Amino acid sequence: MDKKGVQDYYPDDLSYCYGCGRLNEYGHQLKSYWDGEETIARFTPKPYHIAVPGFVYGGLIASLIDCHGTGSAALAAYKAENREPGTFPPFRFVTASLQVDYLKPTPLGVELELRGKIVEVKGRKVITEITVSANGTVTAKGKVVAVQITENFLKV
Amino acid sequence: MDKKGVQDYYPDDLSYCYGCGRLNEYGHQLKSYWDGEETIARFTPKPYHIAVPGFVYGGLIASLIDCHGTGSAALAAYKAENREPGTFPPFRFVTASLQVDYLKPTPLGVELELRGKIVEVKGRKVITEITVSANGTVTAKGKVVAVQITENFLKV
Repeated sequence: MDKKGVQDYYPDDLSYCYGCGRLNEYGHQLKSYWDGEETIARFTPKPYHIAVPGFVYGGLIASLIDCHGTGSAALAAYKAENREPGTFPPFRFVTASLQVDYLKPTPLGVELELRGKIVEVKGRKVITEITVSANGTVTAKGKVVAVQITENFLKV
Repeated sequence: MDKKGVQDYYPDDLSYCYGCGRLNEYGHQLKSYWDGEETIARFTPKPYHIAVPGFVYGGLIASLIDCHGTGSAALAAYKAENREPGTFPPFRFVTASLQVDYLKPTPLGVELELRGKIVEVKGRKVITEITVSANGTVTAKGKVVAVQITENFLKV
């Protein structure tokens, strides 16, 4: 993908997340960016990301919702300050809670589209709602409560 | 691990789940079994399962809760019929919904212990509550609503 995601602007030492860190060579390197008022990310699962034959395992779907949720939270935080990703200081969120509803089996072998809606931006907390679609059909939906990392986080 | 998990008794064609399938060589191969009235599973994340330095990424935690939830559901279903895993017909559940609360950062580099409590067994639905502990401290908790696979599932 040529277009940069908000994850491309995470500080280097916070860019190793397995789900979305650009510096994690083993991970998914998910990229989240704006598409109008919504956020979007795309990911094509590998054949081994199987649940039962023909379908994606739920843990991957949860991971994608999680990382697109925190990425969308960062996008929303920049927007709330009328700043662009890449301006300082950078935003980096982690997940406080994650809810996933598996509406129907997600087919393996096609690109998945994640779409995020910003539900609330309040202080250090951002709530997003995420859908996962395959072949134009929503197969899962999630709600992510994300909290901005403070310097103390890494000292916990 | 010498002790067999309920996943060791899943039918071969339903044993490829990335999170818990014994036949998925790329996956986590989680094994869930009884420990008294609770279910238990253990997993040591790899160094690349990082979120931010020193901590496990949330997607893996969600995956482990998900798979231990469906494994625990299968264990509960056998128990409800006074049968042992390995007797026929086998039970195999998938996730309808997943809720994860990240209570504190989960340290990377230690074995994680997942413990499950069976909350409800009703028809084809089993609800479990799962905790994730590191070094004896609960770092995340989850609730999994699992539904037994029917033959029609694979035809959806």
